[in-house]
Amino acid sequence: MQLLRLGPSGSERPAVRADDGVTYDLTPVTDDVTGAFLAADGIARTRAALAAGELHPIVDDGVRIGPPVAGVGKLVCIGLNYRDHAEETGLPIPPEPVVFLKTPDTIVGPNDEVLVPRRSVKTDWEVELAVVIGREARYLETADDALACVAGYALSHDVSEREFQLERGGQWDKGKNCETFNPLGPFLVPAAEVGDPQALGLRLWVNGVPRQDSSTKNMIFPVAELVRYLSWFLVLRPGDVINTGTPAGVALGQPEPKPYLRAGDVVELEIDGLGRQRQTLGQA
Amino acid sequence: MQLLRLGPSGSERPAVRADDGVTYDLTPVTDDVTGAFLAADGIARTRAALAAGELHPIVDDGVRIGPPVAGVGKLVCIGLNYRDHAEETGLPIPPEPVVFLKTPDTIVGPNDEVLVPRRSVKTDWEVELAVVIGREARYLETADDALACVAGYALSHDVSEREFQLERGGQWDKGKNCETFNPLGPFLVPAAEVGDPQALGLRLWVNGVPRQDSSTKNMIFPVAELVRYLSWFLVLRPGDVINTGTPAGVALGQPEPKPYLRAGDVVELEIDGLGRQRQTLGQA
Repeated sequence: MQLLRLGPSGSERPAVRADDGVTYDLTPVTDDVTGAFLAADGIARTRAALAAGELHPIVDDGVRIGPPVAGVGKLVCIGLNYRDHAEETGLPIPPEPVVFLKTPDTIVGPNDEVLVPRRSVKTDWEVELAVVIGREARYLETADDALACVAGYALSHDVSEREFQLERGGQWDKGKNCETFNPLGPFLVPAAEVGDPQALGLRLWVNGVPRQDSSTKNMIFPVAELVRYLSWFLVLRPGDVINTGTPAGVALGQPEPKPYLRAGDVVELEIDGLGRQRQTLGQA
Repeated sequence: MQLLRLGPSGSERPAVRADDGVTYDLTPVTDDVTGAFLAADGIARTRAALAAGELHPIVDDGVRIGPPVAGVGKLVCIGLNYRDHAEETGLPIPPEPVVFLKTPDTIVGPNDEVLVPRRSVKTDWEVELAVVIGREARYLETADDALACVAGYALSHDVSEREFQLERGGQWDKGKNCETFNPLGPFLVPAAEVGDPQALGLRLWVNGVPRQDSSTKNMIFPVAELVRYLSWFLVLRPGDVINTGTPAGVALGQPEPKPYLRAGDVVELEIDGLGRQRQTLGQA
């Protein structure tokens, strides 16, 4: 089962794609896929409505896909969470998770245009597993408590500007929050249907050239530990999203001249079971 | 004129305090003080409604004051923006603004309880001038363009946990986003009535002991430059808030043993013309 949101940016409507591949209108169950919906057993209610035949099929060919969650309250990001990526950046393996933030208005649909910022010369890619929170996480003690707070998973593109991030003084947030810098989706898969979140292949191509190819098994801090750890520094609420870090293969890690993104480039990425994104780069 | 929001947390109602000191119900003009309200000439409409005698006085004695803006989309923070504070932290004077983020759900009312996080031993205070955005700011060229995007100003308390921020690996965000860590208010004053934002005294006391006493004239990067600068790294939207940095006098800058905050401590802070906050510290 895949939860998704279809339609023009800002006026998406909720939908569910069932295991038979048919897409159904979800508006009889909810106005939108939000944190409140997830916290109020929305996934179970969707499953029940599907099973009861209460939903109507829709045709989604050619319809824009939005981000799979609306009204994201916070977008928390983990840095250097794959050993090979930490090595390619020349930074040490972190002894505990590195945390930074993106603002939720950086989130766009999975196939929307991504804009190279003005004056950017180092716009880079990062395929990541996104965790979507379904229950408040605050001062959690165990990995089981943490996983109980996860509603599901999605594919996320943590677009980054390396000069802004690393060479302009201070904190990484400066290179992570440009408009359109976080394509999310195409859909949210409930945690119970994803299985082991540490056994998912993830891949990314630029203009057809394979650039990242790894597995979430290579995370330094797995999902359960990230949620538990974060809950000691901030409150994770339903609808919040965590970008769990990217494996090796970003432009920053390549030999000179590094192949940073330019307008016209095409980035494609995927995670096993979580679908595929395709963005054409534009110029801000 | 002061815009404020009164009532229990999560169900505040908008109000306006006129120059005669009388507080009026603002619900005939708007359901709430939001970015959309500010962007739709809300301040001018409030002024007109007051002048036309269309608003009804209310009694606000003993009523809780909420943060003066609802639905804040992003809370952008500037670090080390006063020379004396940079010096007391032992960090270099930044050549360009240091930017980090707080999540908007850290915002609480000006007199609400602030919680010392579990396992915290270095909870610290920071009085700051907050800028409230009223118009989208994107790739601005001039200081005048920047100031035209400012709806008004408020008093902000950028509560910080120094061990989490500086000693736990990575980015400052880890020590800035604990629950209740950003009291805001008591009210929003329209930019035109604040006058020069670089001529405001700001002060903070802990348990009655003066700890910070400075002026916004001592900012390294003034408000207009901050808004212009930020607009090249992210899009500022109506209702977004910028914490513009704190002057010297935080606990981190004191000799050992540093007087970090503990449950039961009382912090009071004020900025000329922007009112006063008073928080009692609790324990998470």
